[in-house]
Amino acid sequence: LTVRSLPREEAVALDRVDPLREFRERFVLDDGLVYLDGNSLGALPRSTLERLREVAEDQWGSRIVRAWEDGWLELPLAVGDRLAAGALGAAPGQVVVGDSTTVCFYKLASAALDARPGRTEIVTDLGNFPTDRYVLEGLARARGLEVVWLRGDPCAGPGVEEVAHLVSGRTALVTFSHVSYRSAHIAEMAQINAVASRAGALTLWDLSHSAGSVPLALDEDRCDLAVGCTYKYLHGGPGAPAYMYVRRELQSELRQPIWGWLGRRDPFEMAEGYMAAPGVRGLLSGTPPVLSLAAVDEGVRIVAQAGLDRVRAKGVALTEFAVRLVDERLSGFGVSIASPRDPLRRGAHVALGHASAQRLCTALIDRGVVVDFRRPDVIRFGLAPLTTRFVDVWDGVEALARLLGEGATGS
Amino acid sequence: LTVRSLPREEAVALDRVDPLREFRERFVLDDGLVYLDGNSLGALPRSTLERLREVAEDQWGSRIVRAWEDGWLELPLAVGDRLAAGALGAAPGQVVVGDSTTVCFYKLASAALDARPGRTEIVTDLGNFPTDRYVLEGLARARGLEVVWLRGDPCAGPGVEEVAHLVSGRTALVTFSHVSYRSAHIAEMAQINAVASRAGALTLWDLSHSAGSVPLALDEDRCDLAVGCTYKYLHGGPGAPAYMYVRRELQSELRQPIWGWLGRRDPFEMAEGYMAAPGVRGLLSGTPPVLSLAAVDEGVRIVAQAGLDRVRAKGVALTEFAVRLVDERLSGFGVSIASPRDPLRRGAHVALGHASAQRLCTALIDRGVVVDFRRPDVIRFGLAPLTTRFVDVWDGVEALARLLGEGATGS
Repeated sequence: LTVRSLPREEAVALDRVDPLREFRERFVLDDGLVYLDGNSLGALPRSTLERLREVAEDQWGSRIVRAWEDGWLELPLAVGDRLAAGALGAAPGQVVVGDSTTVCFYKLASAALDARPGRTEIVTDLGNFPTDRYVLEGLARARGLEVVWLRGDPCAGPGVEEVAHLVSGRTALVTFSHVSYRSAHIAEMAQINAVASRAGALTLWDLSHSAGSVPLALDEDRCDLAVGCTYKYLHGGPGAPAYMYVRRELQSELRQPIWGWLGRRDPFEMAEGYMAAPGVRGLLSGTPPVLSLAAVDEGVRIVAQAGLDRVRAKGVALTEFAVRLVDERLSGFGVSIASPRDPLRRGAHVALGHASAQRLCTALIDRGVVVDFRRPDVIRFGLAPLTTRFVDVWDGVEALARLLGEGATGS
Repeated sequence: LTVRSLPREEAVALDRVDPLREFRERFVLDDGLVYLDGNSLGALPRSTLERLREVAEDQWGSRIVRAWEDGWLELPLAVGDRLAAGALGAAPGQVVVGDSTTVCFYKLASAALDARPGRTEIVTDLGNFPTDRYVLEGLARARGLEVVWLRGDPCAGPGVEEVAHLVSGRTALVTFSHVSYRSAHIAEMAQINAVASRAGALTLWDLSHSAGSVPLALDEDRCDLAVGCTYKYLHGGPGAPAYMYVRRELQSELRQPIWGWLGRRDPFEMAEGYMAAPGVRGLLSGTPPVLSLAAVDEGVRIVAQAGLDRVRAKGVALTEFAVRLVDERLSGFGVSIASPRDPLRRGAHVALGHASAQRLCTALIDRGVVVDFRRPDVIRFGLAPLTTRFVDVWDGVEALARLLGEGATGS
C-alpha cells in the first residue's frame, strides 16, 4: 500500500520538470548507477576532462615554464574570486584556493589563535569533522590551550544557546562545520558569529558540506574565517585543493604560520626576510597546484552557472522526497531519520539511522547504490543537487527496503 | 677561431651517442624550442597525458568514490616508495608524497624542533631557497628561537667546515639544500649529517634541485629528514605535490604538527582523539591530491627507468659541455661561471654571472631559448638530463654569444 502512495512514476515526473535536469548531462555518470555519495566525492564534470588535457598538453606541454605568466600564478585568487561570487556570498579578494582542507584549517585556526593572545580556549563540537577536531587538538597541545567541546545531539549540530553557554572572555576561537558531515544539520551561522563576536572571539567555519549545496552569505553573516573542500558539491576531483576565506577587515591583522615564498611580497625577488603579501595572497605558502586548480575551476564554474538558489531548491526537494519515502517505506524496518526534519535546517544529504547500518551500506553498494556509512549507525544518502535524480532517491530507498525485507540485517 | 674549436656538429655527435636519447621522445617538447629551464619546471611526459585521462575518466568518472579503495588511498605511500627506490636511495616506508614543498618543509622542520626541546638555534644558509628561509623565520619567531645564518660564497653552498663552526649543543636543526637552486653546488651531505649528529642536532635536506638529477643515498648518508619538490627533474607538473622523508628510526619519535584525519590511526573510525598512524602515514594531513599524485607517479617512473647513474652521467656531460662553451665563447663578454667548476660538486644546471643578466635573460626567451634569471646577476642554464640535448646547450650559448655580440647589454 505504501509503495503505491509514492510510485516511481512520481520520481520520473519530478525529474522531468527539474529545472536543473540538463546539468546532469554535464557530468560523467553511468545512468545505471544510483550514485548517492556526492557529499563524499562529487562526480566528474565532462568539461574537466578537456580542461585537464588543455592545461597539461597546451599549457604545460607547449609553454612549459612560461605558462606561469600566462595565468597560472593567478589561479589561486582567480578561482577563489569565482568561488566567492558563485557559492560563498563573498566579495572579491577574500578567498584563495590551495592546500588541503586540513592544511587550510590549520593555517586559519593558527592565525586566529595568534590574533587572540592571552585567551586560552577553543570552542568546537564533538560532532565536527574529525580532521578539524584533530587539528584543534594539535594546536591546543602545542600552545597549552584547552578545547572546550560542545557535546550536543549527534543527529544535530551546534545550537546557538549551547554555544553562547560555552563562549566567554577566555575564548579565542569558535569553530564549527556549517553543515554537519553526519546529520546535515545547518548551523545558525549569523547568530553564532554574533555570539562569538560579542565575546571578542574569532569564528572559523568549515564549509565542506555546504558550499555548492546551500547558499552562503559569508560577508553578510559576518564570518571571520572559513575553509572548505572542493571535491564534494563543487566537483573539483579527489583530494582537490581547498579554499580559505578571510574577511577583508581582518586581512592585515591575521598572519598564517606557514611562511612560504608565494605568500611573500614580491616572491621572485627571493629577498631576505619574510614580509607577507597584502590581502589573501599572504595566505599562500608553496607553488600553486595548477592541474588540480584547473579542475576545481571547472567544478566551480558549473555550480555558479546553475546558481545556488536553484541548487538549494532542488536540494530541499530531493531531501524532502527522501524523508517522505523513508518514513513511508523504511520506518517499519527500524530506519530513522537522523537528520533535521526541518528542510531549512538540513543540507543536501539525509542521514538514516539503523542498528545494522554498516552491513546495509555494504549490501547497497554491492547492488549499485553508492551510499556511505558513518559510525556507529548511520547511512548517508548524499543528494548532490546537480547530479542526483529523484529516481535515484526512489531507487535507493527501494533497494534498502528490499534488503531489509530480505532480512539482510541478520548475521 | 673559438667557434671552430667546438662546432655544432660536436653537439650533434654527442646527442647521437647519448644513451638516454630515446628518453627525450617520451616528453612533449617542441624541437624548435631550446628549453633550458627544466630545473624550474620539467617537461610533460607523454604518458602523463594518458594517465591523467585514465585517472579522471576511468577512475573518478566511472568508479567515483569507490576508487578510493581501488588504490587512491595508497598513492602517497606507493609513489613515495617508488621515488625512494628510484631516486632517493631510501628503503621503503620512509617517503610519502603530498602537500606543497613549503608545507612539507614546515611539517618536518616543526617536528624536528619539537624533538629537540630546550635547544634554541636553527642553522641554515642565506643561499638556501627562499621558501625554506621564510618557513624557518616563521617557526623561529613563533617559538622564540634563533636562525643562525651561514653567509658563504653566493656562488657555492654550505661547506662542512663552515657548518661545523656554527653547530653546537644549542643547535636543534641543521637544514640546507642539497643542490643550491642558484649555483648548483652540491653540499657534502654525509659529512654535514655527521657534524650535526655529533652535536645532537637533526638534519633536514631540501632535495628539490637534486632528486632526479643527482644520485642520492639518504639512508647510507644518515639523513634524518628530507623534503623535495617533484616538478623539476621529476617531471610531476606545475605545483605538483612534494615528498617527505623521515628516517625509519625517527618515525616513532617525531610528530608533525598538522594533525589531520588521514594521518590518524584508523581514519575512517572518525573517533575521538588524535593518535598518529604508525610510520610515514602519520605525516599525512588531508585527503591525498589524486590527480596530481598520478602525474607525479608518471614522472617518477620515467626517472627510475632511466636510472640515476645514467641521468647523472649525462648531467655531468651536459654541464661540462656548457662550461667549456661558455669559457670559450662568452668569457670575453664578461660572462663568468657562477657554479662550481668541479663537476662532482655541481648539479645539473650551470649559473652564468653577468651584470646584465636580467636583460639578457629576457632577450634569450624572446629568441626561443628558455632560461631563467636569479637576482641580481645570474642566468641559469638548466640542463635536465632526460630532456636536454647537447645541441640545446650549443644553441643556447650561441644565442647568448650573438646577443652579447650585438651589444644587447647596452641600455
